[in-house]
Amino acid sequence: MARRRYKVSKKPVGTSPGTLTYVGQEIKHATKIKRVEYNEEDYHIDESGKLSACKLPPGDTPHVLWLDVDGIHEASVVGALGTQFRLHPLLLEDVMNTEQKPKIDLYDDTRASSAGVFVTLKMLHHNSRSQEIDAEHVSLVLGANYLISFQEERTKDIFAPVLERIKLSSGKTRRNGADYLLYATMDVVVDHYFVVMEGMAEKLDDIEDRIIRDVAGRDTLARLYALKREMTLMRRYVQPLRDILGVLLREESPLVHPTTMPFLRDLLDHVNQVVETLDSYRELIPGLLDVYLSTTSNRMNAVMKTLTILSAIFMPLTFIVGIYGMNFDHMPELHWHYGYFMVLGIMTVVATAMVIYFKRRGWM
Amino acid sequence: MARRRYKVSKKPVGTSPGTLTYVGQEIKHATKIKRVEYNEEDYHIDESGKLSACKLPPGDTPHVLWLDVDGIHEASVVGALGTQFRLHPLLLEDVMNTEQKPKIDLYDDTRASSAGVFVTLKMLHHNSRSQEIDAEHVSLVLGANYLISFQEERTKDIFAPVLERIKLSSGKTRRNGADYLLYATMDVVVDHYFVVMEGMAEKLDDIEDRIIRDVAGRDTLARLYALKREMTLMRRYVQPLRDILGVLLREESPLVHPTTMPFLRDLLDHVNQVVETLDSYRELIPGLLDVYLSTTSNRMNAVMKTLTILSAIFMPLTFIVGIYGMNFDHMPELHWHYGYFMVLGIMTVVATAMVIYFKRRGWM
Amino acid sequence: MARRRYKVSKKPVGTSPGTLTYVGQEIKHATKIKRVEYNEEDYHIDESGKLSACKLPPGDTPHVLWLDVDGIHEASVVGALGTQFRLHPLLLEDVMNTEQKPKIDLYDDTRASSAGVFVTLKMLHHNSRSQEIDAEHVSLVLGANYLISFQEERTKDIFAPVLERIKLSSGKTRRNGADYLLYATMDVVVDHYFVVMEGMAEKLDDIEDRIIRDVAGRDTLARLYALKREMTLMRRYVQPLRDILGVLLREESPLVHPTTMPFLRDLLDHVNQVVETLDSYRELIPGLLDVYLSTTSNRMNAVMKTLTILSAIFMPLTFIVGIYGMNFDHMPELHWHYGYFMVLGIMTVVATAMVIYFKRRGWM
Amino acid sequence: MARRRYKVSKKPVGTSPGTLTYVGQEIKHATKIKRVEYNEEDYHIDESGKLSACKLPPGDTPHVLWLDVDGIHEASVVGALGTQFRLHPLLLEDVMNTEQKPKIDLYDDTRASSAGVFVTLKMLHHNSRSQEIDAEHVSLVLGANYLISFQEERTKDIFAPVLERIKLSSGKTRRNGADYLLYATMDVVVDHYFVVMEGMAEKLDDIEDRIIRDVAGRDTLARLYALKREMTLMRRYVQPLRDILGVLLREESPLVHPTTMPFLRDLLDHVNQVVETLDSYRELIPGLLDVYLSTTSNRMNAVMKTLTILSAIFMPLTFIVGIYGMNFDHMPELHWHYGYFMVLGIMTVVATAMVIYFKRRGWM
Amino acid sequence: MARRRYKVSKKPVGTSPGTLTYVGQEIKHATKIKRVEYNEEDYHIDESGKLSACKLPPGDTPHVLWLDVDGIHEASVVGALGTQFRLHPLLLEDVMNTEQKPKIDLYDDTRASSAGVFVTLKMLHHNSRSQEIDAEHVSLVLGANYLISFQEERTKDIFAPVLERIKLSSGKTRRNGADYLLYATMDVVVDHYFVVMEGMAEKLDDIEDRIIRDVAGRDTLARLYALKREMTLMRRYVQPLRDILGVLLREESPLVHPTTMPFLRDLLDHVNQVVETLDSYRELIPGLLDVYLSTTSNRMNAVMKTLTILSAIFMPLTFIVGIYGMNFDHMPELHWHYGYFMVLGIMTVVATAMVIYFKRRGWM
Repeated sequence: MARRRYKVSKKPVGTSPGTLTYVGQEIKHATKIKRVEYNEEDYHIDESGKLSACKLPPGDTPHVLWLDVDGIHEASVVGALGTQFRLHPLLLEDVMNTEQKPKIDLYDDTRASSAGVFVTLKMLHHNSRSQEIDAEHVSLVLGANYLISFQEERTKDIFAPVLERIKLSSGKTRRNGADYLLYATMDVVVDHYFVVMEGMAEKLDDIEDRIIRDVAGRDTLARLYALKREMTLMRRYVQPLRDILGVLLREESPLVHPTTMPFLRDLLDHVNQVVETLDSYRELIPGLLDVYLSTTSNRMNAVMKTLTILSAIFMPLTFIVGIYGMNFDHMPELHWHYGYFMVLGIMTVVATAMVIYFKRRGWM
Repeated sequence: MARRRYKVSKKPVGTSPGTLTYVGQEIKHATKIKRVEYNEEDYHIDESGKLSACKLPPGDTPHVLWLDVDGIHEASVVGALGTQFRLHPLLLEDVMNTEQKPKIDLYDDTRASSAGVFVTLKMLHHNSRSQEIDAEHVSLVLGANYLISFQEERTKDIFAPVLERIKLSSGKTRRNGADYLLYATMDVVVDHYFVVMEGMAEKLDDIEDRIIRDVAGRDTLARLYALKREMTLMRRYVQPLRDILGVLLREESPLVHPTTMPFLRDLLDHVNQVVETLDSYRELIPGLLDVYLSTTSNRMNAVMKTLTILSAIFMPLTFIVGIYGMNFDHMPELHWHYGYFMVLGIMTVVATAMVIYFKRRGWM
Repeated sequence: MARRRYKVSKKPVGTSPGTLTYVGQEIKHATKIKRVEYNEEDYHIDESGKLSACKLPPGDTPHVLWLDVDGIHEASVVGALGTQFRLHPLLLEDVMNTEQKPKIDLYDDTRASSAGVFVTLKMLHHNSRSQEIDAEHVSLVLGANYLISFQEERTKDIFAPVLERIKLSSGKTRRNGADYLLYATMDVVVDHYFVVMEGMAEKLDDIEDRIIRDVAGRDTLARLYALKREMTLMRRYVQPLRDILGVLLREESPLVHPTTMPFLRDLLDHVNQVVETLDSYRELIPGLLDVYLSTTSNRMNAVMKTLTILSAIFMPLTFIVGIYGMNFDHMPELHWHYGYFMVLGIMTVVATAMVIYFKRRGWM
Repeated sequence: MARRRYKVSKKPVGTSPGTLTYVGQEIKHATKIKRVEYNEEDYHIDESGKLSACKLPPGDTPHVLWLDVDGIHEASVVGALGTQFRLHPLLLEDVMNTEQKPKIDLYDDTRASSAGVFVTLKMLHHNSRSQEIDAEHVSLVLGANYLISFQEERTKDIFAPVLERIKLSSGKTRRNGADYLLYATMDVVVDHYFVVMEGMAEKLDDIEDRIIRDVAGRDTLARLYALKREMTLMRRYVQPLRDILGVLLREESPLVHPTTMPFLRDLLDHVNQVVETLDSYRELIPGLLDVYLSTTSNRMNAVMKTLTILSAIFMPLTFIVGIYGMNFDHMPELHWHYGYFMVLGIMTVVATAMVIYFKRRGWM
Repeated sequence: MARRRYKVSKKPVGTSPGTLTYVGQEIKHATKIKRVEYNEEDYHIDESGKLSACKLPPGDTPHVLWLDVDGIHEASVVGALGTQFRLHPLLLEDVMNTEQKPKIDLYDDTRASSAGVFVTLKMLHHNSRSQEIDAEHVSLVLGANYLISFQEERTKDIFAPVLERIKLSSGKTRRNGADYLLYATMDVVVDHYFVVMEGMAEKLDDIEDRIIRDVAGRDTLARLYALKREMTLMRRYVQPLRDILGVLLREESPLVHPTTMPFLRDLLDHVNQVVETLDSYRELIPGLLDVYLSTTSNRMNAVMKTLTILSAIFMPLTFIVGIYGMNFDHMPELHWHYGYFMVLGIMTVVATAMVIYFKRRGWM
């Protein structure tokens, strides 16, 4: 059997809640941490990755601090960051649990051990090898003037474009606070949804085209099913973003400035567009399937008609020649001089009549 | 493969939000701008299209200003208008993004860089060449005493009937403010939905008729599927208008006068009628498909019955003539004087019995 | 093609809103207007139909005024009534637009040009000729002490039973105000829904019976589909009445007295019953279809089995007789004295074995 | 045709609302009325059935009065009770209309002509003769210290167990007021839903078993459809009880004591369990149907394979023997000494090859 | 027939509410009761199981009391505990009714005879023998400083891991109150849902793989249906947990401390994940079925094509040899010297032409 398609998060039964366990693919590399500090005037990037440098900034710091953590498979690293930024153990569990579905937690009340906004979501890539969609687990922690972003260790840093914009001082990133940085990182993730959707739209276009032009085989159907599965699984990843952004827009956390609100509304708009497009695509698939099934049915009809026409022509003929193959002593026709040619003539008439009949009935 | 049917808005990943990118069909013509000023007494139309003349009118102007922008493919033009009317960059992005779904934004709070109502919606035409529905991206910006309407550059100015009514001083347009103009432009768009629906209703009528009268072929099914796809995509364009009008009716923006409310309610009513009609049509399609499939199935049944009747008649006959074709030395019947005619008689009886049997069973 | 089944309201694109256009069937007769005045003591009916007599009654009139307008195809008549009773132009448009879906408008605020309750709904009849459901457009305008009812001009006055009760002074109609008259007219319409439902229930009963007893042909399926279409279209007409009555019950318009409320609640109850019965019927149809399709499938199975049994019996026999029809010089069996009868015996055994085999397998 | 399965309540069109009309099966017996009075100390049962004794008890009576009316077909009896207990005419109409769906009315405001709680619901029995579910119309009227229960006249008094408990002074019935009695009577009705469900579960179990074990015939499918119809119709009867109990729990009528609340909540719980179980059963039916259809399809496949194998073996053989049945003067093989046996050998090889081929392809 | 799959809770009709009746499997063992007392400093476990020791602790006790009741089949034991902890009879009925669906009751008002939180839920195990899911009925009663857990008597104590953590003083259990213990026991139950889901995901993976690779037989379909049934039934058990946790989070019972809230939110999150995963799996099943059905259809097509090709090749050949088997006196070809070989040649040409024709049509 091929690699497992359906995965379910499963920590060992009865483990104490808040235990840090990594359930994703095995990773060999060490965790990479980028420390970025910036404001409108200047910026500073520290790629040394020393954990000790990753401390909660003082409340009156004039810079925005961004910790970009590339790798979530080392419980020690995630745990240490959790301690330094006073993050709730359940939250750290969610950072490491790659099967955790997207969610938001507002730790802005005194009951939680830390104030802030916690968001996890899924970065999606189309895996060209397996022809399936890979989901990368991303978590974002927003504090008063800092953002920590966690991503699975892969070949590419998914937040590179954001860092690029900080370096170039282009865009609005440098002028705004950590909340805008939260938006910018989420925006990169949502942008990728459109790329994945684009790939799906192309596939759907191709499959639809094959089915309508009647050149689809059984593998086309398997592809259609695979596409539907991808869309169903993708919806599970994208749909919760509606709630996440809804909470950010509604709850009016003090960490999110009013000027960031239009951007979050715009992002929600994009997420809605992805979900609605997915839904309208998924709605079309049963109809396509029906066209395919009716095609199969029509083909069988054609095959059956061919067989029936064949039988209708040759069964009477074979019967006639059988008659004159009989060995009766007294069969007058056998001794007629043109008997043979008469029978050949009769058979031509019978065959022609059959052909005309089936042409009239529209079977030929 | 034919032209792409499914399109997904895709700005380059990681682009800074608010970047103006046009994603529609390539356009060669320059943007045309009509500047219309009117009140109950007089009106003035300036088709020179000078951008410099398009300025935010002073708050106490006695005229309503309408800028009808025909063409959204030039980032420079849209950007310049955005600056002069102090429109938010995200809003301008939506003006140019032809794949943006219909939405409303009330910039009536101090947090946004501009006060006003922003609406984007889709003008729908039936494209008689591709037999599909073309969507034209339309955006409307309502300010205190002005309206800016953006439309894609096509052969026709879709708001011509509104301009006509302003010229003729007929209708209520001249007596009312910019909010009524917003309603009037949206009303033109919704009127076209009924035209498109009318075309779909005709198609559905025709397909249903063919299927019920049993003259439908595989292409009828493909047309039915295409109709369903069109309805599914159209619903995506029309459905959001409910929310848009709901927001306008509920939020009681100071820009919308109470006298315009009944007109907006009436418009919402029309939109609801379109959506509900679409839904009831779409609901009928699976049933039609079932009738078609059962027809195919019944036809195959008829073919199979023909084959079986043929076999049932000729197989025994061929067997009988085979018997008397055998070369045994001692076959008494062969030497009987009327043996041949007896066999012919027996075969007539067998064939008649078969025909009677199948008639009784209702197969013939 | 038969008459159009799917209709979409379509006023000419770009027409000024509030323009009165009639879109229904062409009517030759003039509009008939009945003017009824009544209170608990006496009543007066004026069938002269003079438009000039149809004036807004003074606020302190001791009678209830009922204008029963039979015919909505004359824009001049509807327009004149609109002027005399100060009705909003959009409302008059809805009176004449026979494709307008049921709706309610409470003009009880000062923003509208007229105070009152406006209701449009659909009278349904089963058209025994086309075997389809005809919808008649009905509009009701409730004022302080008057009711105007508009109906399409047909052979029958649908509100005749209400008038009868006013004449007979039976029922509660004479004791109550115009709001009770509104209820009474709506009640007549809803009563007819039950009649139409009754007809549908009979059809469903009959179709179900045919399918279960396996005597259904292709026309049964077409009838089932037609029934589903009727139910789907009917639901569109009945469903909005829920909202209409919901608004009347919730909004507590000063025009509706508390004593009328239980009657409206009862009416809502009846409407709910119609909608829920429709829904449960519609839910059963796919199951019926599956039974029908499986029947078709079973029949084909039976045909195929017959063919296979025929072939299994005669193919070996024909082969055997073919063997002894060969002309080899040395075929010992041919010269045996009882060779012929042995072969006949063998063939009987083969045929019997086949029959037993298929009986065992349950195919015969 | 068998008895009608789908019934629609239909009072004559245009009848004045509140007219008492009985629409159920014809009943010959007279209405039976049981008059029960009880409190914690004693109880008194009067089965004389005199209508005159059925009067509204004074407000300060120390007993709970229960009128158990067995028979709702006599308009005079229901009308008289209505007058004595000051019940609204519309309410009495609902008592007699056996097609009325379950509903609740709180007449606890001064606008209604009587204060109280009115509930109608459906008692369900499995009718072992028709194999369908019979619904009996039950109505309950709760006043300050009395309860009137109306039931259709059938062989059994459905509230007998409640009366039994009052007599035995067991249970909580005697200690509590009329509101607990309302609960107790509804509880008996809901208990019967479980009995009916139990029967359905057994049927579903049996049908599923037959289909999975592949011994299902066309009648199994008809039974499955009948089961679905029953579930759909039953849901219509049970579902409204959710709202009825919801209203009782939420509205906090002064007639319902806080101590009765947990019992009503428990009852709601049971109703929810019935509805959810029904829904999960109904959801399984399409899947079962698919298994059945695929079984039919597989069987046809088997039949076709048999036919094809038969043809593949005997067609070549019959052709070969045909060759040597030809009468050419010069056919060398015919004169070979072992020609006949060689041909027999060749045919054995051909037949064996065919069998091996089909075994390899998995067709045999 | 195998054991019953669908069960409906059924206490005898008309039984007084609150009567304790056990409806599960028959159990022979006596109920086991573990009495656990702990706080941050020490703990004490009493497995003697004496009922008399199970008393309501005084309000100011410094320990948390946990009664773990293993066995709910003895009405006397459950009744005695109910009396000692002053639990409502309806609640005890729910403890013993193994068919009761999951629910929550907050007895935190003075109207109930006891204050506290009552939760029932279902422990799920995959039964490897019946390949089905076993549900174990679990009830939890939370008081000011105690928790009573009821479970069905099975081979394993499902709360063993929680007891283990109390003994080891690991985890947060010892530091927190009875509300955290409630969370910890529910968490164990929800953890098992993931185990069960994991098993389902494996099954789905396997079935999907077989269907896509076209090696699925009828038993695969039966397994797919069984999987769907399991998922449908499981959803019924898991879904109510959403409401249960929603009530705990929303109602802010004084018994639940704010520090426990994040844990309950986390648990709700897990439950949501289970439900959504179940839903997305269930949504994929119809698509899989369609692929399977189309495979069956394609196979029949292949069989039919084989038969038709066979017939198309051998029918003409058999006809030709039949011609020359006729016994006419004058058939010139029979006397040609190479007549036989010419006919063999013609037949080779005919057969080859047929093969080429079917290859071109793509049937071979």
